[in-house]
Amino acid sequence: MGPTEAAAPELAAVSEPEFAGPAQRETLDPQDWEGFRTLAHRTLDRMIDLQRDIRDEPVWRQVPDDVERRFQEAAPVDGAPIEEVLRDVAQLVVPYPTGNLHPRFWGWVGGTGSPTGMLGDLIAAGTNSVAGNFNDAAARVEEQVTRWMADAIGMPTGTTGLITSGGSVANLVGLAAARDAVAGFDVPGRGVRAAPGQLALYASTEVHSSVTKAAQLLGIGRDGLRLIPTDAQYRIDTNLLSRTMREDRADGFVPIGIVGNAGTVNTGAIDDLDRLADIARDESVWLHVDGAFGAVAALSDNLRPLLRGLERADSVALDFHKWMYVPYEAGAVLVRDADALKRPFASDAAYLAPPPRGVGAQPDPANGRGPQLSRGFKALKVWMLIKEQGLAKYGRLVEQNVRDVRHLAALIDSHPDLDRVAPAPLNVVCFRYAPRGAAPDAPLDEWNQEILMRLQERGIAVPSSTVLRGHFVLRVANVNHRTRAEDFDLLVRETLRIGRELSG
Amino acid sequence: MGPTEAAAPELAAVSEPEFAGPAQRETLDPQDWEGFRTLAHRTLDRMIDLQRDIRDEPVWRQVPDDVERRFQEAAPVDGAPIEEVLRDVAQLVVPYPTGNLHPRFWGWVGGTGSPTGMLGDLIAAGTNSVAGNFNDAAARVEEQVTRWMADAIGMPTGTTGLITSGGSVANLVGLAAARDAVAGFDVPGRGVRAAPGQLALYASTEVHSSVTKAAQLLGIGRDGLRLIPTDAQYRIDTNLLSRTMREDRADGFVPIGIVGNAGTVNTGAIDDLDRLADIARDESVWLHVDGAFGAVAALSDNLRPLLRGLERADSVALDFHKWMYVPYEAGAVLVRDADALKRPFASDAAYLAPPPRGVGAQPDPANGRGPQLSRGFKALKVWMLIKEQGLAKYGRLVEQNVRDVRHLAALIDSHPDLDRVAPAPLNVVCFRYAPRGAAPDAPLDEWNQEILMRLQERGIAVPSSTVLRGHFVLRVANVNHRTRAEDFDLLVRETLRIGRELSG
Repeated sequence: MGPTEAAAPELAAVSEPEFAGPAQRETLDPQDWEGFRTLAHRTLDRMIDLQRDIRDEPVWRQVPDDVERRFQEAAPVDGAPIEEVLRDVAQLVVPYPTGNLHPRFWGWVGGTGSPTGMLGDLIAAGTNSVAGNFNDAAARVEEQVTRWMADAIGMPTGTTGLITSGGSVANLVGLAAARDAVAGFDVPGRGVRAAPGQLALYASTEVHSSVTKAAQLLGIGRDGLRLIPTDAQYRIDTNLLSRTMREDRADGFVPIGIVGNAGTVNTGAIDDLDRLADIARDESVWLHVDGAFGAVAALSDNLRPLLRGLERADSVALDFHKWMYVPYEAGAVLVRDADALKRPFASDAAYLAPPPRGVGAQPDPANGRGPQLSRGFKALKVWMLIKEQGLAKYGRLVEQNVRDVRHLAALIDSHPDLDRVAPAPLNVVCFRYAPRGAAPDAPLDEWNQEILMRLQERGIAVPSSTVLRGHFVLRVANVNHRTRAEDFDLLVRETLRIGRELSG
Repeated sequence: MGPTEAAAPELAAVSEPEFAGPAQRETLDPQDWEGFRTLAHRTLDRMIDLQRDIRDEPVWRQVPDDVERRFQEAAPVDGAPIEEVLRDVAQLVVPYPTGNLHPRFWGWVGGTGSPTGMLGDLIAAGTNSVAGNFNDAAARVEEQVTRWMADAIGMPTGTTGLITSGGSVANLVGLAAARDAVAGFDVPGRGVRAAPGQLALYASTEVHSSVTKAAQLLGIGRDGLRLIPTDAQYRIDTNLLSRTMREDRADGFVPIGIVGNAGTVNTGAIDDLDRLADIARDESVWLHVDGAFGAVAALSDNLRPLLRGLERADSVALDFHKWMYVPYEAGAVLVRDADALKRPFASDAAYLAPPPRGVGAQPDPANGRGPQLSRGFKALKVWMLIKEQGLAKYGRLVEQNVRDVRHLAALIDSHPDLDRVAPAPLNVVCFRYAPRGAAPDAPLDEWNQEILMRLQERGIAVPSSTVLRGHFVLRVANVNHRTRAEDFDLLVRETLRIGRELSG
């Protein structure tokens, strides 16, 4: 014992676990590495074949009852050979995916993934780095990817950010930064109850549900999320926004931020971001832009003008697993003011204090910029894909997706039995089957829901749906690098075929 | 056009992007699938060799300047062959990991990963399912894994939960559920400002920093996180807790929950969870247990008694990427009351309304149980490992880690130049070099920080550090399935060697 004796009496009093004699040593490493290697290569081949041949598969299939029952089994007490586990994966899991690998998956905003992205995740899992908090390559790759994206959308030098699980958490982080930067008091210390009035965020009625969740989680509440109606193009009515903010202040609200949409989920509408930046400046509030998919349109010279003002945002949320085609999951939040990003996530834990050298020598750990401490190395697949493809090709792919949606919109517009029900300013189009001569009380909503389900059940295509102006509509969001123009020809043909099955 | 004409005038007014003639069609799929396959297999071999031979590698190495410069490069406009990208990965990324694959990595609570876990992530990325929101295998696997864990720790049938990125978000989700279930008013609707008094969470001074972050994010604020001192074993003083809660109520606080520790990060201390469950019941507040690593000790018959009361918690946070050895990232939150879990995350977005059949026919989407909408298929690797290894082996591995830490503690206790500064009730031990006969003003803190950094820089071992009772100490947390007892012999030997270099 050295000079510090204080600990001794405590130790004596402690119950520390005791075990009988040494058991046989075990590990999760394979006993037979070469056998494992063979099976691993077989698995990799299957994954490559799956992506290569995906066009020949149905887009989706229902899990049958016998498979369903296997998912009800209790956890095994004793293990099974890895061969058996991989057989279970092959029989129970691989045949029943979400379907978003497929060239005719356009549901929600489901990204397609890519073979190089898969390699990125393989390497991330194989090296198992914990990203962002340590003095290692992973933290540097993340920082480089964040910088690349900030540059690509024109945000200034010094912009910081965080690789997130996706757009929802990116929105949460951006709005947390907004709350704690603008509310005018020490929110992380005192809590929202100390606010002099109801904190208020402003967004259009088309804003993504994750913003509602963020308002709830941040203690602002739905009462503080002020939803402003949109114009005919589903963009926020900026005059109404300004007026509402003025009136709200008079009513005791404390406006803290505006959420602009760069690509709404329903129709792909892009708010007038430049005007929103003006209003945010004039009102001294934060501008956060939800660019989950739309921000990536900045990679195209032809589409970038649609996003004018994006570069003026205080924070931007974007996804890599949507319009940058990396496998799930990866997104990012970019924030102009690094201090603002850190305020909600400050911590002074002794076990995280960075030493001057060694593994922990990370002066700006990502832990201080978001809700996670441990994080997987999601940036690697993004870094690899940008290096392999280059930003210019990404711009062309985004344009290709938009061009194909223009083709689909033209097909819909030219057919008398199809109704396009909203503008398609980007890569999303909403439409429905509405045959000429149908009775005024024809059950169009029911027919279109049935069309949607049959398209999916027959493995033909996966659009999703939404409700616009009270109507149930089919919705195609194209962030699919495998789609060809003729895939939309097929969609239209089969939609009409099923529609006629229903309308007779 | 059918009977719905309303949309037509809007469409006419819309600016929809136009492009000159069709460009050449592109994709992110390889042009040469067989060439890609060859490189992918080479990558897989490298990842398998890396894990097989990791014992022969240094635990960690510093990124050199020439590599550092590569991470400063701007994003490439044009791409490069995948061979080149994989060469960059091999030269810039793989040699500079966090280090937690290695048998002598015991820093923070860095999990080791495993080859089967890596295959799980490969398959997840290859199939690219979006987990939890759809009518597919991924949602079923997640549900099964959640049920397995709830059963394993003895929570009742009907317990629900969510696969999360890890313990931090699991703590956030559990505490969000607590806030919205107990505060006594519509928190998601009205926000925290409507609270009749300062909302209060109770935890020991040893609670993890993610709980502080959660309090900040949830709008409760650090003022509402009431930190209760611990006893000599670093467990919350339950008498003081009860008294503080009573006094706080008298002072206008609104107690909503207690956070119990099942394995504190500093020393592995386990609070008296059964007593905390009694107090939570008596005070009508929520009991959340942060079991990020410690909850997994429930898989061992010998260790389970230490966790008595865990099964009574309202919510439990745990990690798979720590003591269940899956690659980063995966954790879970388990919640007794399904309605309480959903309250903070409710959303009524039309584009997410589940239809009766098809891909979207998911009556209980995970989106409604956490902050993410899109999520990667993290549960697959857990499912595969539990099937391969069985729960019994997991219990034995956890015991093996604890037994090895007992061995290390005994080595420390028996050496006159080493001071163990805290009890080691589980798999964490804290100690420092404090040579007999050192001057009373010997710079022990400086020496021990230098020992820590040299152990890491020389690639020998990676403990981390913390501060206990004002002293800088070395800290070993063993969640490593590759560690052998002799690895701790080496740690002690090298700690003493470096210590003597410093103390002369």
